[in-house]
Amino acid sequence: MKKVAVGVDIGGTNTTIGLIDEVGKVIAKGGIKTPAHGDIEKYMDDLAEAIREMTALTSEVLSVQGIGVGAPNGNYYSGTIDYAPNLSFKGIIPFVALLKKRFPEFDHIALTNDANAATIGEMIYGGAKGMKNFVMYTLGTGVGSGIVVNGDLVYGHDGFAGECGHTTLIPNGRPCGCGALGHLEAYCSAPGMKRTAFELMAKYNAVDSKLADKSFLELDSKMIYDAAVAGDKVALEVFELTGKYLGQGLADTVHHLSPEAIFLFGGPTAAGDLIFKPTQQSMEEHLLPIFKDKIKILPSELDSGNAAIIGASALVYKEMEK
Amino acid sequence: MKKVAVGVDIGGTNTTIGLIDEVGKVIAKGGIKTPAHGDIEKYMDDLAEAIREMTALTSEVLSVQGIGVGAPNGNYYSGTIDYAPNLSFKGIIPFVALLKKRFPEFDHIALTNDANAATIGEMIYGGAKGMKNFVMYTLGTGVGSGIVVNGDLVYGHDGFAGECGHTTLIPNGRPCGCGALGHLEAYCSAPGMKRTAFELMAKYNAVDSKLADKSFLELDSKMIYDAAVAGDKVALEVFELTGKYLGQGLADTVHHLSPEAIFLFGGPTAAGDLIFKPTQQSMEEHLLPIFKDKIKILPSELDSGNAAIIGASALVYKEMEK
Repeated sequence: MKKVAVGVDIGGTNTTIGLIDEVGKVIAKGGIKTPAHGDIEKYMDDLAEAIREMTALTSEVLSVQGIGVGAPNGNYYSGTIDYAPNLSFKGIIPFVALLKKRFPEFDHIALTNDANAATIGEMIYGGAKGMKNFVMYTLGTGVGSGIVVNGDLVYGHDGFAGECGHTTLIPNGRPCGCGALGHLEAYCSAPGMKRTAFELMAKYNAVDSKLADKSFLELDSKMIYDAAVAGDKVALEVFELTGKYLGQGLADTVHHLSPEAIFLFGGPTAAGDLIFKPTQQSMEEHLLPIFKDKIKILPSELDSGNAAIIGASALVYKEMEK
Repeated sequence: MKKVAVGVDIGGTNTTIGLIDEVGKVIAKGGIKTPAHGDIEKYMDDLAEAIREMTALTSEVLSVQGIGVGAPNGNYYSGTIDYAPNLSFKGIIPFVALLKKRFPEFDHIALTNDANAATIGEMIYGGAKGMKNFVMYTLGTGVGSGIVVNGDLVYGHDGFAGECGHTTLIPNGRPCGCGALGHLEAYCSAPGMKRTAFELMAKYNAVDSKLADKSFLELDSKMIYDAAVAGDKVALEVFELTGKYLGQGLADTVHHLSPEAIFLFGGPTAAGDLIFKPTQQSMEEHLLPIFKDKIKILPSELDSGNAAIIGASALVYKEMEK
């Protein structure tokens, strides 16, 4: 029988469920709504039922190894979701315990946050296969990260390590969503790129930019990309600056951990050289000679549409190694 | 018989050798000159002879477990000293191999850089005993660091991880000794504090400061400390700013690794609250809420006069755990 693992990705609106095989292929995919008003026991029952339905269909040919869950503020050590700002379940939710109660037959049920899940996905199925020391940055609405040292994800003393999006790039710089000033996330996330575009239009009085007819609510990073490809100066400088900011942050990560490679994941990375080239150049400028021209910056090899459930499922295979 | 380990600290001028017992007590101490013009085989012979003399004296009551070496640019993986800027031996020196040739009887001969050695010393003998996740910053002429994750030192993919002194604090800030701009070391090392003092005297035209009669060559961090204790405003602001800089850097480290504690080692830490208080306050300001009021900043418990050989010897006990 073919081995599969269940991957669950909990988002603010939807909970996505997938059956993923040992090479990271999605065999089945489904989901339920993440409730806007949280009755956690009801939600867990619905989730368990959806998982059972999906696995029942294939139980004769597939052998399910366990359930991996990626959730905002998911804590691997405690198996809890702690004060997740975008979920309606408040406080500390003993998620793994609630799931184990419903699936006593599984030895491997594990939880972590979404960026860590993606990082384990990259290690088990993706471009980091065989790497013992690497880091992944996920660029999206926020900037997440996962760190692998000696083949294991770094969880830190409390389960919350790998928040590189909240390192300080610019002292007293832009307010970050977390309340502090000048964090990397305020510059290198998709909204950070939009803020950079608006700063540049203000600086140059750029009435002839292709971005000049978009409101702050309208503008997104895809529009900035399209404008950059069409040669728009403001849009090109947005990528140049974003790479400069990101490279500075990646250099800090290298000075901590000396990884073999840093993987970038998420929307902005679709811009390819537009973002990778200035990032690499800026990182090199900030590095000690001992690290120069040694550390690769690579695009994630995970299927971006399914990366969350694929990453979550990888937790199961990682647990099975132990 | 009592177990001891040999600890060797290689500096630009002197090589210090110690016999250290299992609780980190120095049983014997000696040394030889590090040669200014490098004949490496001759130096290794002299070093081996000095180690043999020291261990011979006590061979009836002590059982020597191995040799640990701390050296600038010492690489744990390869056992080599690579392009150390302050040593007369150029290129890549196969230090552990040269030592093993002279001490085939020892199973445990290991090498790392000085900051990593101090970090292992803190873990084996000092305040980090029992901690699985912590970080150490060594503040001196430079700023070194060592990172421990899950009870093991982080060496990275190439043996050179833990260079937190070279993270960027201030984009396009002060030139660092390594050639890059705005690195933490340029602000938080002893020379960095002197640079801050001179900046402040220039800013305030501080003719009445207790530091105003000192030349750039004369001023050292002990004088800044004495002036601060006597209430000198410039000197007090130097500590305030150094703590502010350092706290920003420590927050970056926390966002990467979520350690249980960060230990500070070296001359400037003798100033106690003068440096620890603003450092803690600044770190907290830069942290995600999830990390606030959780991460301890602690003074190293290693005997500062002997920390280098004590740390080097700890490498042996760490190897024996494997």
